[in-house]
Amino acid sequence: MGTDEYIAYSRLWNFSKNIFAAMGCPEADARLAATVLLSADLRGVDSHGVARLSGYVRLWETGRINATPHMRIVHETPSTATVDGDAGLGLVVAPFAMNVAIEKARQCGSGWVSVRNSNHFGIAGHHAMQALAEDMIGMAMTNASPLVAPTFAQERMLGTNPISVAIPAGEEAPFVADFATTTAANGKLEILQRKNEEAPEGWIQDQYGRSSTNPHELKLGGALLPLGSDRVHGSHKGYCLGAIVDIFSAVFSGANYGPWAPPFVSFLPLPDDPVGTGLGHFLGAMRADGFRPLDEFKANMDKWIRRFRDTKPVEGQERVLIPGDPEREEESRRSKDGIPLLPPVVKDLQELAKRFELEF
Amino acid sequence: MGTDEYIAYSRLWNFSKNIFAAMGCPEADARLAATVLLSADLRGVDSHGVARLSGYVRLWETGRINATPHMRIVHETPSTATVDGDAGLGLVVAPFAMNVAIEKARQCGSGWVSVRNSNHFGIAGHHAMQALAEDMIGMAMTNASPLVAPTFAQERMLGTNPISVAIPAGEEAPFVADFATTTAANGKLEILQRKNEEAPEGWIQDQYGRSSTNPHELKLGGALLPLGSDRVHGSHKGYCLGAIVDIFSAVFSGANYGPWAPPFVSFLPLPDDPVGTGLGHFLGAMRADGFRPLDEFKANMDKWIRRFRDTKPVEGQERVLIPGDPEREEESRRSKDGIPLLPPVVKDLQELAKRFELEF
Repeated sequence: MGTDEYIAYSRLWNFSKNIFAAMGCPEADARLAATVLLSADLRGVDSHGVARLSGYVRLWETGRINATPHMRIVHETPSTATVDGDAGLGLVVAPFAMNVAIEKARQCGSGWVSVRNSNHFGIAGHHAMQALAEDMIGMAMTNASPLVAPTFAQERMLGTNPISVAIPAGEEAPFVADFATTTAANGKLEILQRKNEEAPEGWIQDQYGRSSTNPHELKLGGALLPLGSDRVHGSHKGYCLGAIVDIFSAVFSGANYGPWAPPFVSFLPLPDDPVGTGLGHFLGAMRADGFRPLDEFKANMDKWIRRFRDTKPVEGQERVLIPGDPEREEESRRSKDGIPLLPPVVKDLQELAKRFELEF
Repeated sequence: MGTDEYIAYSRLWNFSKNIFAAMGCPEADARLAATVLLSADLRGVDSHGVARLSGYVRLWETGRINATPHMRIVHETPSTATVDGDAGLGLVVAPFAMNVAIEKARQCGSGWVSVRNSNHFGIAGHHAMQALAEDMIGMAMTNASPLVAPTFAQERMLGTNPISVAIPAGEEAPFVADFATTTAANGKLEILQRKNEEAPEGWIQDQYGRSSTNPHELKLGGALLPLGSDRVHGSHKGYCLGAIVDIFSAVFSGANYGPWAPPFVSFLPLPDDPVGTGLGHFLGAMRADGFRPLDEFKANMDKWIRRFRDTKPVEGQERVLIPGDPEREEESRRSKDGIPLLPPVVKDLQELAKRFELEF
């Protein structure tokens, strides 16, 4: 596959922004979309960053993404709302909805926004972290293309449906959890495919629901497994989590849920009996001082983080991590050294540059 | 171990209520505590029901439970609050806090209540389900005695920290997820201990953090593993979930968190450097019509449930379950046939009866 090429963040950001602008996004939206998309590359979630840029372009070409959406609140109470994303880029719709959640939290302590008529929103962590600067706890989840079989199921019914929770601290860096509700994310399978290596037991099943270690199994009708892998190891809990994300994101808002969730790849057809519009998200914000004075909250979060970071590790491991540690370290490294891109991703971007007559 | 004895729900309820009354609980609290406690037995969660009654009594005897608490809101915004349980029975404190959450949701769409100075609250599912009758989504979580090692950790830092989410439907029974954030709950180990059987790989580790199948490992300094079992199978996600429950329940409210969480068993000492008061919970309620009209919400929940129930099962399995199905079926069976109790549990109750001079 050749070696990675390191490209400066600013160069990728400018290019992505120019592509979104070329799709017809207003300048502010193009800038925001580039920032959200590239937060994945910065934080080391390579599957969700600039590698997906051409995927967004193809969705726009097939008319599934609207570059100039009229996003609006269609239903609300003082602390809850549903936002219609008007088929805009999820990268722009989710921050709009998160702002609604934050404004509601400012007014009445918490804000919870379900979103319909959207599409892929990048990494959940970026949206949850939007709340941190306001001294709020942020939450973000989204449903996604159906690739996951519930416990005992032969069919793909759920997406990898990630959950992110960001909690501000005082002197310590914030707590940021951001994880797919499956045992392994699809991006990890792609890495194994490229290396021609087998997957560990417990990640995937074949089209009949039998355990498999073939990393190409999804193309053969197989499925990803919920967190827990099998019933004995708690896969019904991973299934519950994926289901909760699906319902909060799509049943609450009127988006498509379960097997009706629209696929990210433009070459797969949309279901011809939709149960809603587009993909769904769920975003939340709670004021940290909605529960106790802010200084007490922060001092105790610091204490929590320090105690957990001091946990005695097992032999062979250097330390116990706080959620968000690895991504923050990656971000600091990549901001300096650049973003490592695989040759096919670089080629993909070069082709986009040619097509839109842009500098890469 | 002898065979189970089936005892009518009403007999166990009356007895439990009389015990709580004998501890000095006001009549209404004693009735509520009995109902919450026995909801576990009815729903098949035997480890959390009447088998724990003598444990509550012992906590009361050592002064860790206050039978006549002055529960109160100590901090609030229109949609958030912290409740101090005044060391009352968690079985009574959690419903009080859930009522606060429901009232806030009535007023402004959602309500979120963190609780300090409480103790074991029975099954999370009971509290989440309290919201269903109001056409609200209910959520409940709690921290618990530290028995779980985070990924890469040799120490026990978290409890089994359950999460419950209850979502109302229309014609279908509600969706009710209720699960520990570990691979297996402690109750499952106790069953293996009684049967003298080995535990599956991936449930527990020994005192050095090595994989173990000895169901007695916790007594030897071992630990339960987070959902996902090991790093390759996503245990860092289970660790994130357990950590989120701990922080929402205890850092938000001012309860004890992490390794400071007070043990349920009265023979273990309390940490001598507490970071808060008692155990913590987190309860939430959201109006279903806070996101879309109620009839639409319910019709789509019905459709979600029906589609998932119709999922093609793998060979050898009869069907794909909806979260809450097994517990509801158990409840309907046990309401009719009685609650099966193991001989040591019956003996425990007989001893309680003698001690308090009550009929069993």
